[in-house]
Amino acid sequence: MSAVAITGIGELVTADPLLGDGSALGLLVDAALVVEGEQVLWVGPATAVPQADHAVDLAGRAVLPGFVDSHAHLIFAGDRSGDFEGRMAGGSYTPSGIRSTVAATRAATDEQLAARASSLVAEMLRQGTTTVEIKSGYGLTVHHEARALAIAQALTPETTFLGAHVVAPEHVDDPGAYVDLVCGPMLDACAPYARWIDVFCERGAFDADQARRVLGAGVAAGLLPRVHANQLGPGPGVQLACELGAASADHCTHVTGADVDALVQSGTVATLLPGVEFSTRSPWSDARRLLDEGVTVALATDCNPGTSFTSSMPLGIALAVREMGMSAAEAVWAATAGGARALRRTDIGRLSPGARADLLVLDAPSYVHLAYRPGVPLTAAVWQRGRPVIPVAG
Amino acid sequence: MSAVAITGIGELVTADPLLGDGSALGLLVDAALVVEGEQVLWVGPATAVPQADHAVDLAGRAVLPGFVDSHAHLIFAGDRSGDFEGRMAGGSYTPSGIRSTVAATRAATDEQLAARASSLVAEMLRQGTTTVEIKSGYGLTVHHEARALAIAQALTPETTFLGAHVVAPEHVDDPGAYVDLVCGPMLDACAPYARWIDVFCERGAFDADQARRVLGAGVAAGLLPRVHANQLGPGPGVQLACELGAASADHCTHVTGADVDALVQSGTVATLLPGVEFSTRSPWSDARRLLDEGVTVALATDCNPGTSFTSSMPLGIALAVREMGMSAAEAVWAATAGGARALRRTDIGRLSPGARADLLVLDAPSYVHLAYRPGVPLTAAVWQRGRPVIPVAG
Repeated sequence: MSAVAITGIGELVTADPLLGDGSALGLLVDAALVVEGEQVLWVGPATAVPQADHAVDLAGRAVLPGFVDSHAHLIFAGDRSGDFEGRMAGGSYTPSGIRSTVAATRAATDEQLAARASSLVAEMLRQGTTTVEIKSGYGLTVHHEARALAIAQALTPETTFLGAHVVAPEHVDDPGAYVDLVCGPMLDACAPYARWIDVFCERGAFDADQARRVLGAGVAAGLLPRVHANQLGPGPGVQLACELGAASADHCTHVTGADVDALVQSGTVATLLPGVEFSTRSPWSDARRLLDEGVTVALATDCNPGTSFTSSMPLGIALAVREMGMSAAEAVWAATAGGARALRRTDIGRLSPGARADLLVLDAPSYVHLAYRPGVPLTAAVWQRGRPVIPVAG
Repeated sequence: MSAVAITGIGELVTADPLLGDGSALGLLVDAALVVEGEQVLWVGPATAVPQADHAVDLAGRAVLPGFVDSHAHLIFAGDRSGDFEGRMAGGSYTPSGIRSTVAATRAATDEQLAARASSLVAEMLRQGTTTVEIKSGYGLTVHHEARALAIAQALTPETTFLGAHVVAPEHVDDPGAYVDLVCGPMLDACAPYARWIDVFCERGAFDADQARRVLGAGVAAGLLPRVHANQLGPGPGVQLACELGAASADHCTHVTGADVDALVQSGTVATLLPGVEFSTRSPWSDARRLLDEGVTVALATDCNPGTSFTSSMPLGIALAVREMGMSAAEAVWAATAGGARALRRTDIGRLSPGARADLLVLDAPSYVHLAYRPGVPLTAAVWQRGRPVIPVAG
């Protein structure tokens, strides 16, 4: 294996608190990084960089770990820009809108779904996202959920079975029968393609008992739990996630003091999704409160056609700083190391020796520019598994 | 001159109400467009496209006029990410922050300023902005203002003399003397490089009498007036702009009923700058009110290192829809035809025969995606003066 020295790093976010300035971001200035194979071999000051076979000079640019987007729904067909415009003109969001995407998704071919998902993963990569979690949840039959996960598994190891997204249209009059289906034949068909089990625990979707059944069945089948919790109003989702030791409770827009305590006690990550609040004009999650109480916070896009059709982690960072009380440092940590925690991964979301060499090079001198320059595409280059998948131009 | 037929346009925003669906956006579906030299020669249904020498198929993508960013400050040096972080942590914005950029700008070489500005214009072009206005205002001496405008003039014909941005640090004890300088030797040195005269009429910058003197002197020197008005609080800026027949009153965050009436009567464009409100955490301009009262509204970035270091017109559109009560159609009109009105240009901001062939091709089926997909770089291609400056990939 040949080693590549990446030099001229004006600011390096290692997201390893044992490195650099000792902050959570583990910042180094005037740094270098050596990649060997798929991994980071060495990180340190530019003046001390060891010999390598090749060298790339970044001319003072900032480098951070590739974003870890731990919550996305990419297996779908159709468009809900009409719903979006209606909401912006004063309409409201309910989970039932999911069913229009279900109809379009069922009607699409495998090839159409794979092409759309693959195009979104490529769009994410261009914006610096090197790991993405992908959920099912727009099929809602045994066949359509399993094919969604098979398509997802070709794109990422972080696949999530979300048969319990909403009750399938065929079962609206008998939600119990749908939960039986999800926990039985659908889970059997989907488990081989999934790492995670998820449920939308919300009024209009699944209640606490139903959610507990779904997650329990998933865990019994070897999947790891995560929960869509407390998005549209207060509810039992966060507590359930914590009780079951879920890796993450996602949304956390409406949380009580007891919810916050449970998150702290269980170590469950609160994954905040500012794109949803932006595109549904909902109240913002209070990241400041969660952080101040000691909760681990991740940021993700929730990329989906209904409530958050953005693939942009930088926008999430900018919104978290503008609207949720996070500092730029906290937001960047949440979008990298925080996302890795939410996926129980230790090999990504940091740039220290032994980590996977997934890195984002910014056309900017500091990670702060991700918040300071909202909306601006700042990707100068992206490396994934040690390879420059988007090389530095010029 | 050879003609190029651009076919396969899924949705064409002409921004000419005499075309297409008769709305302000003049929408055509399944359209084509023929470019000859620097101009649009023909627009119409794909089925009726005339013969051309070459053809480009856009495979159903949406096309709109290139954005017209009618308010930007691109001639500067230094960085104010520290100010930004302080504000996000609870600090407030005052015009005095401008002076730190003035110090850095004066210290920079011509080459450094030109390289930075040129890089920002290129960044804008990649996001679909084909016309940008550029102001001086970070020099504040005769020499430094004139060189800023000489640099700007190499990048755009829409150059604006903004010696009256704030009182120069040398003159803080005698603002009157600074206004004398701006209206005398500075104007003499700058007028050859400028099309527009502008003033920051605000508490902490220039009052109504000072602003009137500056604008009057500029007009007497052959420049056209525009005004930074009513950004930080209510004030005389909007009324002054209207009284002088300015092309645009920019910001308009704090306006009274009388201000709105004056805008309607004078036809002065209200140029709204959502990036500023985003990055200073200020109240949002009420576009809905202005539109409902009959004011012509433009959107621009106000790209500058202090209060809005974004070059993204798509972000401005998304914010205008989320926060200012505009529909996606109104926001896209404001970012194209509206910007052209704010610059008194009839050759840009529309795609109808005779217009300049400046166009943005989206990786999306509709202009609505500019709001529906916030933060996502949607540029598939950009044509400027009839040439594909960013070609369609693949």
